[in-house]
Amino acid sequence: VVLVSPRNPLNIGAAARAMANFGFEHLHVAAPFAPNWREARSAIGAPELLHAAQESATLAEAVADCTLVVGSGTLTYRRPEQPVVALPALGALVEREIARGGRVALVFGSEKHGLTREDLSHCHCLVEIPTDSRQPSMNLGQAVAVCLYELAARSGAEEQGRESAACAQQGAAPGNASGGVLERLAEVVETVMAAADYSPSAMQQANRHDLRLLLRRLAIRERDARRMMGLFRSILFRLQHGSGEEK
Amino acid sequence: VVLVSPRNPLNIGAAARAMANFGFEHLHVAAPFAPNWREARSAIGAPELLHAAQESATLAEAVADCTLVVGSGTLTYRRPEQPVVALPALGALVEREIARGGRVALVFGSEKHGLTREDLSHCHCLVEIPTDSRQPSMNLGQAVAVCLYELAARSGAEEQGRESAACAQQGAAPGNASGGVLERLAEVVETVMAAADYSPSAMQQANRHDLRLLLRRLAIRERDARRMMGLFRSILFRLQHGSGEEK
Repeated sequence: VVLVSPRNPLNIGAAARAMANFGFEHLHVAAPFAPNWREARSAIGAPELLHAAQESATLAEAVADCTLVVGSGTLTYRRPEQPVVALPALGALVEREIARGGRVALVFGSEKHGLTREDLSHCHCLVEIPTDSRQPSMNLGQAVAVCLYELAARSGAEEQGRESAACAQQGAAPGNASGGVLERLAEVVETVMAAADYSPSAMQQANRHDLRLLLRRLAIRERDARRMMGLFRSILFRLQHGSGEEK
Repeated sequence: VVLVSPRNPLNIGAAARAMANFGFEHLHVAAPFAPNWREARSAIGAPELLHAAQESATLAEAVADCTLVVGSGTLTYRRPEQPVVALPALGALVEREIARGGRVALVFGSEKHGLTREDLSHCHCLVEIPTDSRQPSMNLGQAVAVCLYELAARSGAEEQGRESAACAQQGAAPGNASGGVLERLAEVVETVMAAADYSPSAMQQANRHDLRLLLRRLAIRERDARRMMGLFRSILFRLQHGSGEEK
């Protein structure tokens, strides 16, 4: 990631944090404003990669060893001279370049005016973040976060898949209640309904049917079904034997 | 977008800006710290949607009219009690819910500790931003930006199967009950539990939490929720006024 003349130390810190969040390491700052850059680096909690960042006087030096240089920005106010890539397509592009042994730079301009025409002349292409035309201009730290998320989400897809699978498995672990458990639950609920005068006897046939459908629609887990049964049995006991609150 | 007790006015502003960038309009702030909230709203250049933001005392009120409530956060430090969706799969899920006439809330916790276990009990599922395990915790404004980018850029683009299956089930039935209906149902059930001596008062806090999780896990339809409420109210009436069967 290359930041060109970033102004706000908070934004520099935010960009570095986003890099750490998504597993990126190499930060390069071109033509920084010395005091702001110092302030950003000395901030409490600044990630390690901010201290290890490289610094250069010009963007040209910063991207000297890169084989693919991608500028970022909104295109609302100007006609780009380079090919434009929509952000969702950037991952494939970067992956291909790295697979063939190249180095990729993702370049962000200053908060005030973004990348200049001169800056863009160092870029092979432009990535466009698909923002709303009424408010196209993103905060620097947020733009970095969104771009790196997109790149990380693609390259980390395999790893995530594994994690999500583990989570899904965890969620499914208790297992749905069996038909038998649901049937016993339905019986108890029905008895409670009758005891509470909720279900006039003429309606019981229809209610039993609806109740069964409902219990299955709910995809109740075994454990939850047992708890529900416990509750309805307590209710039934109270209804039949009276509770302390009755008159 | 719902922010729960955001601390830093700059982050509130950044979240609002990301919403404007990606074309989202409805911001809701739950349990804000009054001075910080005032400061954020009066900031120069605050987007219109920040002035139009709604405010409520609790998260429950903020999501009362929502049929799918998605919490956000990193899962590195805790085991989630809800199904987890990887962020790239969120777009399809949200689109499906909106297509069937639902309302979706995306909930972000405070900068200090994210969403609490109590906050999460109002959520149908959790979205996980795939961050690096060495630096998993994202800045609030950046987290909002990344999530909304994903929704704006990819809504409907890719159908993700397995990952979103658990959560999709949550929203599967047409006409899911809204957060407000579920909350009222939970209250009635809780009252019945207490009246039936099922829930010793020492346990009530834990039970309330479990009950909320359960009701969301069940993906109850609006109509069924109303019937359940009717049943539990009848039970309550009987418990409090006695039934014909008591001694």
